[in-house]
Amino acid sequence: MPYLCLMQEGNANLSRLIERANLNGFNVIAAPLNAMEIPLEFQKEPMNKADSKFTYGDLLLTADQWNTKTILMLSELMDCDSIDPVVRKNSEEILKRDISWAEHLQYGGYILIKLRRAKNLNLARVITQQIKGVLLVQVPLYNAPAAHAVWRRDLSEEEVLDLEQQDTWQWWNRFRRAADFNSKMKVVLEFNEVERPSLDIVRRWVGEPLEAVIIPSNLFIRNRQKYPVLPKAWQQVLKCVLQAHANIVVATDANDNSLKLYSDYLQNFRDIHKDAHSLESFEDVLEIPLQPLYDNLDCYTYEIFERDPVKYKMYQDAIAAALIDRVSDSEIPDKLTVIMVLGAGRGPLVRSALNAAENTKRKIRVYIIEKNPNAIRTLSAMVDELWSTKDVHLFSKDMREFSPPEQADILVSELLGSFGDNELSPECLDCAQRLLKTDGISIPCKSISYINPIMSSKLYNAVRQVRSESFARDKQATYLTHAESGYVVLLKSIYNIGVPQSLFEFVHPNRDPIIDNSRYKILNFPVEADCILTGIAGYFESTLYSDIKISINPSTHTHGLVSWFPMYFPFTEPLEVIKGQIIKIHFWRCVSKKKVWYEWCLTSPSTTHIHNLGGRSCHIYCT
Amino acid sequence: MPYLCLMQEGNANLSRLIERANLNGFNVIAAPLNAMEIPLEFQKEPMNKADSKFTYGDLLLTADQWNTKTILMLSELMDCDSIDPVVRKNSEEILKRDISWAEHLQYGGYILIKLRRAKNLNLARVITQQIKGVLLVQVPLYNAPAAHAVWRRDLSEEEVLDLEQQDTWQWWNRFRRAADFNSKMKVVLEFNEVERPSLDIVRRWVGEPLEAVIIPSNLFIRNRQKYPVLPKAWQQVLKCVLQAHANIVVATDANDNSLKLYSDYLQNFRDIHKDAHSLESFEDVLEIPLQPLYDNLDCYTYEIFERDPVKYKMYQDAIAAALIDRVSDSEIPDKLTVIMVLGAGRGPLVRSALNAAENTKRKIRVYIIEKNPNAIRTLSAMVDELWSTKDVHLFSKDMREFSPPEQADILVSELLGSFGDNELSPECLDCAQRLLKTDGISIPCKSISYINPIMSSKLYNAVRQVRSESFARDKQATYLTHAESGYVVLLKSIYNIGVPQSLFEFVHPNRDPIIDNSRYKILNFPVEADCILTGIAGYFESTLYSDIKISINPSTHTHGLVSWFPMYFPFTEPLEVIKGQIIKIHFWRCVSKKKVWYEWCLTSPSTTHIHNLGGRSCHIYCT
Repeated sequence: MPYLCLMQEGNANLSRLIERANLNGFNVIAAPLNAMEIPLEFQKEPMNKADSKFTYGDLLLTADQWNTKTILMLSELMDCDSIDPVVRKNSEEILKRDISWAEHLQYGGYILIKLRRAKNLNLARVITQQIKGVLLVQVPLYNAPAAHAVWRRDLSEEEVLDLEQQDTWQWWNRFRRAADFNSKMKVVLEFNEVERPSLDIVRRWVGEPLEAVIIPSNLFIRNRQKYPVLPKAWQQVLKCVLQAHANIVVATDANDNSLKLYSDYLQNFRDIHKDAHSLESFEDVLEIPLQPLYDNLDCYTYEIFERDPVKYKMYQDAIAAALIDRVSDSEIPDKLTVIMVLGAGRGPLVRSALNAAENTKRKIRVYIIEKNPNAIRTLSAMVDELWSTKDVHLFSKDMREFSPPEQADILVSELLGSFGDNELSPECLDCAQRLLKTDGISIPCKSISYINPIMSSKLYNAVRQVRSESFARDKQATYLTHAESGYVVLLKSIYNIGVPQSLFEFVHPNRDPIIDNSRYKILNFPVEADCILTGIAGYFESTLYSDIKISINPSTHTHGLVSWFPMYFPFTEPLEVIKGQIIKIHFWRCVSKKKVWYEWCLTSPSTTHIHNLGGRSCHIYCT
Repeated sequence: MPYLCLMQEGNANLSRLIERANLNGFNVIAAPLNAMEIPLEFQKEPMNKADSKFTYGDLLLTADQWNTKTILMLSELMDCDSIDPVVRKNSEEILKRDISWAEHLQYGGYILIKLRRAKNLNLARVITQQIKGVLLVQVPLYNAPAAHAVWRRDLSEEEVLDLEQQDTWQWWNRFRRAADFNSKMKVVLEFNEVERPSLDIVRRWVGEPLEAVIIPSNLFIRNRQKYPVLPKAWQQVLKCVLQAHANIVVATDANDNSLKLYSDYLQNFRDIHKDAHSLESFEDVLEIPLQPLYDNLDCYTYEIFERDPVKYKMYQDAIAAALIDRVSDSEIPDKLTVIMVLGAGRGPLVRSALNAAENTKRKIRVYIIEKNPNAIRTLSAMVDELWSTKDVHLFSKDMREFSPPEQADILVSELLGSFGDNELSPECLDCAQRLLKTDGISIPCKSISYINPIMSSKLYNAVRQVRSESFARDKQATYLTHAESGYVVLLKSIYNIGVPQSLFEFVHPNRDPIIDNSRYKILNFPVEADCILTGIAGYFESTLYSDIKISINPSTHTHGLVSWFPMYFPFTEPLEVIKGQIIKIHFWRCVSKKKVWYEWCLTSPSTTHIHNLGGRSCHIYCT
């Protein structure tokens, strides 16, 4: 459940603050860990009576309230990266003590620390050793002086450039790299007064583990009815982070009387702009791609796919268009069209074909070919009960071994995976095209895969997680396995480093004298902003017939199509890339008698090893 | 959520059966996978049209209904262990086909297979290779002929013995041993008509992964009001399995009109006799024992312990009794009793002492000693705010290093772990007794640990699970680690092979000239019934003062005491033990300067390696 948090400093009474927050529509509070600042002069013989006065007593709230209702803010006075060794050491000690106290209060709760500048290396070192729960890292969305400087005329070009380099994303980036992408760390973005916030900057943050945004109450303006609202430009920013499921924190002082107005406004804004959908639980979850050629799909999987509201309608339209092109109105009474459905599953494509025939009044004979014996049971019942008056014929066969009584006018198949060819549609259709008349039609007739480089901290950590879990199960696996595998993922928390470009193309039927389905292509993507390259996203577009296409490429995505999530090909190590550099991706599709696999690597801005060499970590079985 | 399942054979219409079940108070159905028996003569060219008539179509129910509302029963005609190789091979093929079909219908659902005799080795082999979801293994509670034979006078003693050996638990045991304790397998116990069911037999099944019991409708008798009820003896059996959270299946034929009466009766019976409590989620879950000496406890843990409704009342009573014994009524005005609370946490024992003083009108001075700096903050606030008029003094110290202004009359501590001495109360109290006057009192004054051998399939599999997970995280760990560790567990699904016997005793203060807290003891437990020894359960009893005791030993358990769960010391391999054998357990408490640990092994009925030798897998740090 997303939360709305009230952040307030200088409250001696936390339970009253919680009460006030609740009354005003906030379900969480953020408050300083120490009611008063503990002096930086660290006292060695410690924790004496006087000490307790600086903080809240743990009995003030229940353990449950500490855990689920409060974000504890660490003091801003500490400076673990001070050049003064006394200040640095005292800061380290106080930080340790405060984190120990915060974790005493919270059993896996939330601690917030604020980054105030680029240099935080020693802080990262100290804090990573300590935290057991979640560490929220507060970073300004912009470096305000730098952002403002762009508009100042009194600065030299160099001075502006220098200020621009103080990118707050780099504050975070250096901090979390030092902490080795620790998955307990999450970003809290602080909105600050900048005239024109750039959405490009905001989009980059979506590739990070974004927990929340902090909206200072002075960012609100009054509308004509005198209600507080956010300026238009900030509404765009908020919309963007809400799509990434960020929570909202409002920072106010204790005298602010508009709390309820803020929460009403934000609650309403969130209800309108949040991205709620039925597939939410799949977001950023790694799934092993299906191998329907090797494994038989089950009832549950068939049911999910059959529910796609768009796919089978597109197929029906494609078959109808092909029928009309092949059989003129005058030929309708005499001309029979033979349609073969290759890999019929539980029959949705057969229905599409029968509907298309009925709508166009064309006469058809349907050969249904399916290799899964469990699906054959269902098809067999359908043939008997639903299609007993139709000219349909069921064959329990692998399409590659099928010898038909006659050749087909139209082959219909849905062997496409998230990456187009990754469920071996080229291999299957090449082999099946002997079933097709020389002037016959394949639906689909063309498929193209697309890729682009992306940044996603979440996916980087998800792959690390899978990697160590799988290492547990199978000690034979090298540590590389699973860090080099292609996954199916509903991409959400990502930053697109470049726009997807077309990769491999396959045409059906393939009339080449010698058919070669291996491929190799090199693509260049210019880097628009400093970021971390974690992997490659993959998509496909497929032409069913004529101009009827289905696509999961973000630029051309078919509206309502839900059957396919994108692919994700990780790099084993995250790679820092700089604005202006070129990412040069090499991608191979490799084919042997028994298996098909992909390999990928970079040669710019630096050279990586070739991932999944020889298909060692993942491949698709041909048999 | 526990379910009530209606089992019926010979239903052509499953959706109507689900509807009928729901109307009559059953939320799940069990029905044969095949609507008609598929002939055992296996047809090689398979899965043809005719074939589909034998089973249900997958479109009959939604994927969700197949998964959550149905238990699919495999055919009883298959005989994978037939001596006729043709029957055996055909059975294997049909079993594979049927499981493939069942798993096509159910995405991780429930398949039921019935064991009909002792010999099921080949069945176990075939089935373990196939199942992906849960396999329910139906076994009669008794072997009915064997059970009845005990009462027959025409059989020779030998014949009776032979029949008795046909123990249905052994049918299951051999089956699951062949399947290597596969955690996807669960037991479904079939009640059958036996005059006097033995609760001992039933209790042994509680150590197994018990999913459900099947009550055939003919087991019901009519009470005076003509309502169906279970006979008294069977009520006892049902009560016993309900305590272990077994689900209930009622087996009837299609003409039975009393369905609603059965479900009402059973629902009501379950509501009365189920074991629902707030700690349910902890049952059979392995927890790493706390090491409060090494780790500081957090706010959440303190809060849990402080909530114990019994513990601090017992301490208060013990302190009161000691005060009265030490200070006669006439001495009240003059005599001050010095109480030291060692390891005060957030002060519950201080409250017990102050209450005891107030109730007995004795004058006390309290020294509070605590080493956790976070708890000191709370204590410090309490001293200031709650106890400012009392004679209390706070010291932020490890009790082993504390130099008091004066010696104590009474030392109060709660350093007891689930096994008594496993949080190092002996070491701490021995060291602290220099704080005590020579005639002073320690509360507690004596602790004794208890052990007994147990069978628990669930815990055996839980340890295997932890073991492979931890191997993932820490590649340095040997594969033994975690299979040799002591755990804290709320024991539930266990069979007590013998009654707990006393193991180690510690007395405080310990006036021995040379104190030695290492121990070694050998205990013998006769085996009452064939079973599998998986580990050793551990408990403690502690005398606070005089006759005031707290105990988690099942035989003497203090009513309402919830602060401690038992210990569990696993054996790395499960060991089959036979009625009449003696289990001889050797148990050591070992002490070095830096750590304390336990070792354990068997020398009868066979010899195991010494577990946790040298504390290699688990130990308690002294500092």
